[in-house]
Amino acid sequence: MKLYFSPLACSMATRIALYEAGADAAFVRVDLATKRADDGADFGAVTPLGLVPALRTDDGELLTENAAILQYVADRSPQARMAPDDAAGRARLQQWLSFIGTELHKTVFSPLLDASAPDAARDYALKKSGPRLDVLERHIERHEHLVDEFGVADAYLVTVLNWTAVTPIDLTKWSATHAYAARVRTRPSVARAFAEESALYARARENARPATP
Amino acid sequence: MKLYFSPLACSMATRIALYEAGADAAFVRVDLATKRADDGADFGAVTPLGLVPALRTDDGELLTENAAILQYVADRSPQARMAPDDAAGRARLQQWLSFIGTELHKTVFSPLLDASAPDAARDYALKKSGPRLDVLERHIERHEHLVDEFGVADAYLVTVLNWTAVTPIDLTKWSATHAYAARVRTRPSVARAFAEESALYARARENARPATP
Repeated sequence: MKLYFSPLACSMATRIALYEAGADAAFVRVDLATKRADDGADFGAVTPLGLVPALRTDDGELLTENAAILQYVADRSPQARMAPDDAAGRARLQQWLSFIGTELHKTVFSPLLDASAPDAARDYALKKSGPRLDVLERHIERHEHLVDEFGVADAYLVTVLNWTAVTPIDLTKWSATHAYAARVRTRPSVARAFAEESALYARARENARPATP
Repeated sequence: MKLYFSPLACSMATRIALYEAGADAAFVRVDLATKRADDGADFGAVTPLGLVPALRTDDGELLTENAAILQYVADRSPQARMAPDDAAGRARLQQWLSFIGTELHKTVFSPLLDASAPDAARDYALKKSGPRLDVLERHIERHEHLVDEFGVADAYLVTVLNWTAVTPIDLTKWSATHAYAARVRTRPSVARAFAEESALYARARENARPATP
């Protein structure tokens, strides 16, 4: 497998899942500004919207979309128990993957993280953050993980919650969610992914900084 | 099962799937403005964000999020063949359900359909529509349905594409997608759902119109 990723982007959820599974995978960094991948590929030709994650499977298929890739990685390594295999549990997992993808990632964070978004679009997104984090908080107050045990929905959520640091959202107002994020980040697969991608992210920013006299 | 819906909202995809399955279900209309459901329930107490669809299963569980509900309905009626049961096909289905939910529904249509959204947020959403409909067009040019045969992803997509009628998006510019939508709408389950929900939608608008002398 080959994972196209950008440091600290939502593709980190798949890195966490791959580490958790102990799966063999190549990680190819994509510069989202230039759409060049470190393996020399024009990423816009790999996948037309140029969004990470994109996963090249061992069959040569290209899979996109977090919800699909995360379930694919989980199902490929059932011993890692990252996705329930009973119908009710799987439905609950799909509900959380969809909630994170639609209500948090795309509704709230995509506009807030997009420097080219107009202020009104960012304000509009910010107003939607409260009710959505409230939903999450009420669930997390009563559950250690989103679904039964640690799984791909938690990998996605901890990745998304990290973005609050560069938004006006103060996650400490949602104390159970804040504690959950801190707790999940101590898990070895998650800690390793954060350490590695934070270093890559810092290096990219360093390189992008204009030379000063 | 009990489906909480609003006429012509994304919950119509689940109605189509239920008709396609021949499944026994109660349909409970929700007034999204007042959050009252026709069965007398306070819909904000049923599900905190007050978003349709919400499905009460026969086990009494409440399931939300299109991607989860649609796969639940498909898996409950495998004879209707609305979701592939092989791993590669299921991953592809999940990719399309996620694409429709994140890139079309939430990124493009939610702001465009929200009368309270600021103009800049609507313009921002509108700018994102072209590249996303291009992705869809390139796939539909080469496929009759999103995944193999008619399934829940098509039910969701035809529901979402219908919303272009009340946006500045001119779907005829994407000719394969436009023809796909027209073709899918002739399918009996889809035609029936559109006829019934269009009538309910028109009646609700009629009732909401202020009395004129």
